[in-house]
Amino acid sequence: MKKAVILLSGGLDSTTTLYLAREKGFKTFALIFDYGQRHRREVARARKIARISGTPYRVMKINFPWKGSSLVDKRLPVPLDRREISSRIPSTYVPGRNIIFLSCAAAYAEVLGARAIFIGANAIDYSGYPDCRPRFYRSFQEALAEGLKAGVEGKRIKIHTPFLQKTKAQIIQEGLRLGVPYSLTWSCYRGGKRPCGRCDSCLLRGKGFARAGVSDPSISSSGTRGGKAAARGRAGT
Amino acid sequence: MKKAVILLSGGLDSTTTLYLAREKGFKTFALIFDYGQRHRREVARARKIARISGTPYRVMKINFPWKGSSLVDKRLPVPLDRREISSRIPSTYVPGRNIIFLSCAAAYAEVLGARAIFIGANAIDYSGYPDCRPRFYRSFQEALAEGLKAGVEGKRIKIHTPFLQKTKAQIIQEGLRLGVPYSLTWSCYRGGKRPCGRCDSCLLRGKGFARAGVSDPSISSSGTRGGKAAARGRAGT
Repeated sequence: MKKAVILLSGGLDSTTTLYLAREKGFKTFALIFDYGQRHRREVARARKIARISGTPYRVMKINFPWKGSSLVDKRLPVPLDRREISSRIPSTYVPGRNIIFLSCAAAYAEVLGARAIFIGANAIDYSGYPDCRPRFYRSFQEALAEGLKAGVEGKRIKIHTPFLQKTKAQIIQEGLRLGVPYSLTWSCYRGGKRPCGRCDSCLLRGKGFARAGVSDPSISSSGTRGGKAAARGRAGT
Repeated sequence: MKKAVILLSGGLDSTTTLYLAREKGFKTFALIFDYGQRHRREVARARKIARISGTPYRVMKINFPWKGSSLVDKRLPVPLDRREISSRIPSTYVPGRNIIFLSCAAAYAEVLGARAIFIGANAIDYSGYPDCRPRFYRSFQEALAEGLKAGVEGKRIKIHTPFLQKTKAQIIQEGLRLGVPYSLTWSCYRGGKRPCGRCDSCLLRGKGFARAGVSDPSISSSGTRGGKAAARGRAGT
């Protein structure tokens, strides 16, 4: 059975990616990062999703010993209620994050003898991060072929980005078909007890569920203030 | 003053690279990795070298949550007394290590606004690691241009590999000219109190000093057993 490493954050995109890879017949292995993210809550969710889906996983701890991103530096505010989400790179951008994560995934793949890496990156309903762009993945795959023992031995590792060109609503529709447990997924950057509904990640998620025509099972039926705010925000997008 | 990130392991190549970058007029920033290497002694040396050279530095901690390399898995033996060092990839190979380190250096460079990364990789007197090959660096630099905010904004980061095609003896000769404090550098993979003189790293270092026609200041004048063994080993290479 062909093996694949899945970068699993515990969010909506990566969890759907995990289920899709399994449907495609891959024996999946999850790689989870504990990198000081303010929404560390997602790490626990990722572990739980890996467990309930029967996916072996590893948690990799990395400290980013510099400041500059509001996603890892709690002194900086997470931008809220942004309307033109993809128009410029926001403060939640963590320099080089996907590059670092993919490098680690490549190492894990090499150890496992896997020739596939799945990442739930998205370049449609996304925050404008450069390492979510299609050309980056093509280029990085080439670099892996040159820098890994596997590559040198002719066993190239392919980076699968099944949702790169899908809308959030399309991802959710695919996930519902696959039986993804969305109630367990975590998206909110702020990492409070409940999703804030106002950060980019909540707004994109809210818009996705609204457009998919289903309610978000991670938000209780009574709704959170944030959930309602997100719902309001959606109307104009 | 143009800034550069230097990947500093505390070994001979990376320390010489640091001094060379300074001579070239870069304001240097060192990135040191504490990744569970059995020769963790090098981390302390790297810190010391950064301090005495007046180089600001960051230490990044990474756990590799998988086994497979004798450099991070102490249950596996480090290969000793290998004659044809570059003939095949040895067990000390840490999958994806340079890829991961360069990814982190790129992130640090982006945070600093640096457009240069220096790595003391060497593809002549080396252990045959695929991520020390010239074509890997070219390819990786392209990937960075696509995946970083800096790259997207037209500020490409260049990966400098000044010693890629130099012999160890040439690196040492360059370092002596630059005043590199070789007595502080640490190369031995086994990480004991004294260099073993028998691992690949000790053998390559020993050969380098021998060919440069100078004695290794990190080995006491009385010599270690390992040092003598390395000296004997050199005769045939």
